Amino acid sequence: MTNLETWAVIMAGGSGTRFWPASRKKHPKQFLRVAGSKTLIQEAAARLGDLIPPERRLVVAGHEHVALVRKQLPKIPPENILAEPTGRNTAPCVAWAAVEIARRSPRSVQVVLPSDSVIRPAAEFRKLLRAAIEEASTSSALVTFGVQPTFPATGYGYIEIGDEVSKHAKIPVHAVKRFVEKPDRARAEQFLATGRYLWNSGMFVWTTSAILAALREHAPTVLAPLERCRTSAEAVAIYPTIPSVAIDVAVMEKARDVRVVPFGISWSDVGAWPALPDVLPADPEGNVTGGGALLVAEDSRRNVVHAPKGELVALVGVSDLVVVRAGKAILVCPKDRAQDVKKIVDRLSREDPGWV
Amino acid sequence: MTNLETWAVIMAGGSGTRFWPASRKKHPKQFLRVAGSKTLIQEAAARLGDLIPPERRLVVAGHEHVALVRKQLPKIPPENILAEPTGRNTAPCVAWAAVEIARRSPRSVQVVLPSDSVIRPAAEFRKLLRAAIEEASTSSALVTFGVQPTFPATGYGYIEIGDEVSKHAKIPVHAVKRFVEKPDRARAEQFLATGRYLWNSGMFVWTTSAILAALREHAPTVLAPLERCRTSAEAVAIYPTIPSVAIDVAVMEKARDVRVVPFGISWSDVGAWPALPDVLPADPEGNVTGGGALLVAEDSRRNVVHAPKGELVALVGVSDLVVVRAGKAILVCPKDRAQDVKKIVDRLSREDPGWV
Repeated sequence: MTNLETWAVIMAGGSGTRFWPASRKKHPKQFLRVAGSKTLIQEAAARLGDLIPPERRLVVAGHEHVALVRKQLPKIPPENILAEPTGRNTAPCVAWAAVEIARRSPRSVQVVLPSDSVIRPAAEFRKLLRAAIEEASTSSALVTFGVQPTFPATGYGYIEIGDEVSKHAKIPVHAVKRFVEKPDRARAEQFLATGRYLWNSGMFVWTTSAILAALREHAPTVLAPLERCRTSAEAVAIYPTIPSVAIDVAVMEKARDVRVVPFGISWSDVGAWPALPDVLPADPEGNVTGGGALLVAEDSRRNVVHAPKGELVALVGVSDLVVVRAGKAILVCPKDRAQDVKKIVDRLSREDPGWV
Repeated sequence: MTNLETWAVIMAGGSGTRFWPASRKKHPKQFLRVAGSKTLIQEAAARLGDLIPPERRLVVAGHEHVALVRKQLPKIPPENILAEPTGRNTAPCVAWAAVEIARRSPRSVQVVLPSDSVIRPAAEFRKLLRAAIEEASTSSALVTFGVQPTFPATGYGYIEIGDEVSKHAKIPVHAVKRFVEKPDRARAEQFLATGRYLWNSGMFVWTTSAILAALREHAPTVLAPLERCRTSAEAVAIYPTIPSVAIDVAVMEKARDVRVVPFGISWSDVGAWPALPDVLPADPEGNVTGGGALLVAEDSRRNVVHAPKGELVALVGVSDLVVVRAGKAILVCPKDRAQDVKKIVDRLSREDPGWV
């Protein structure tokens, strides 16, 4: 394996409300037990196993969530938590982490991961990670993971893969031909038919020097202000002035040498309540229960239930519903209307913001 | 008005689970805020206004609910609460109360009322009550109230009315031709078409001497053991040996002189969750919220929601559902499946009785 020091960057800046009422502004999805007994960020950290020890894991999170990070990931040293004063999308997050790691360990390779996806089994994931680390360490390429699509999703970007460029422990690495923004349904179906497109998972592996060089070349307005800072406090102060842009757009789509490790194991970004069956086991009637609650169902099928441990949810004669209890709020909606939960959240934000 | 002392008997022995999870074995429907800010039994007591003062109100309740009665009706003297060691239907309840009132006030007239129905407006109710009291006081008749049917209900018994026999303050009193057990749909429709049938409301007015005489004649096995008791403690001891029978069957259907006051005001026995719209105001989309919770509904119609004050229920794109939060339990079911809540309750009684 690589003789570079391996670091992880866990990006925990998300603040969506698609898991309302469980997710709130002060308590976003990555801090929830959506997919089991661990919160998503705890699962993201645990997934690294002993490949990267806690003292070499950085977490980038909104400043209002730092206390949650410290509580849920107590082994992460406090100086490894970078507190964004305001969300600026992924490029500033990647750049800040890269500058920080460069200062501590210039000859290093980094694994950059979202905090809110579910990947299983973890041991298989680490094999893929090792291959990507090997690939990044022995080249100056930016390496990404591309998830084998299982349906013509319109909610993800795609990666068109090129030729196989190498192999590590039987895991192939391909050149990336191009990144494609979220397609419409017809294009997504075409992509699937070719067998040459993977979902862009938002997971990356690169050496610290490679990502700094790429940022310097393609996103100097993002990197330069951060490189000039001598302390974290200075970075926090100038952070809100950095352009808000995604790393895919700022760097990945422009970089010359991008490679992809196809990802054949189970992956889900758990985008909203109806995705729970992707990451949790169902009962024989297809009902899925998260959060630890007891479900008692009578003539009820394919429902998604989430409520805390010690609570009981009784369903009689209902199908394809989302039923969530969190805090002092309950949500009931059909799975195919889950996107409209946003309307409730918007209304409450205006009229009764304590509930959001 | 009558120169007899007027007493009330509030029958609070019910212990149904049709309002589960709000109603529990230890906390039945009559102790719930189903229809407003008062519990049903508090509303039943308040409805009497100053017609019958608290010291002349008896409450018959299951012994396990006496503490609830004392808490919810603090003005009722403790010696006015008759604690049934076990439920024996309404005839023993009526007989016990009659014996108890006879001991304290032999020359009296009694109003016997369930604790779990909703009747509005209360002032109109008291006018009807005054007429029935007048009728009972000036005769030895057993007087009942018959509710003007609004649909061909199969869940109630019916009363066929005969000729008008008197009038008090413009309120007519009719002879009762006969009592009819719960009919099937076709018969119920016939009853409605004739205009001569009323629903049996289970509310009665009679003098203490008249009901004791009727019990002595038609239900001696119910009355005699209670008459032999010299104290409440003795009554409690023999209560479980008394035949379990309804007053309608034991006495009303057999008595010679039964009269009925037609009841033209709003009455509901609030039989289960789907009845909530009968007793609570709806929003413009037909959604009804009980219990004090805040409802936020988006594209949702005719739902019945019940949850405590301080809680939020958010509905998106659902119609004709029952959504209840009580204790640590949530129930979701279509209104037309509410009868099947019993299946859940039965299952929990066997498997996890703490929830019932």
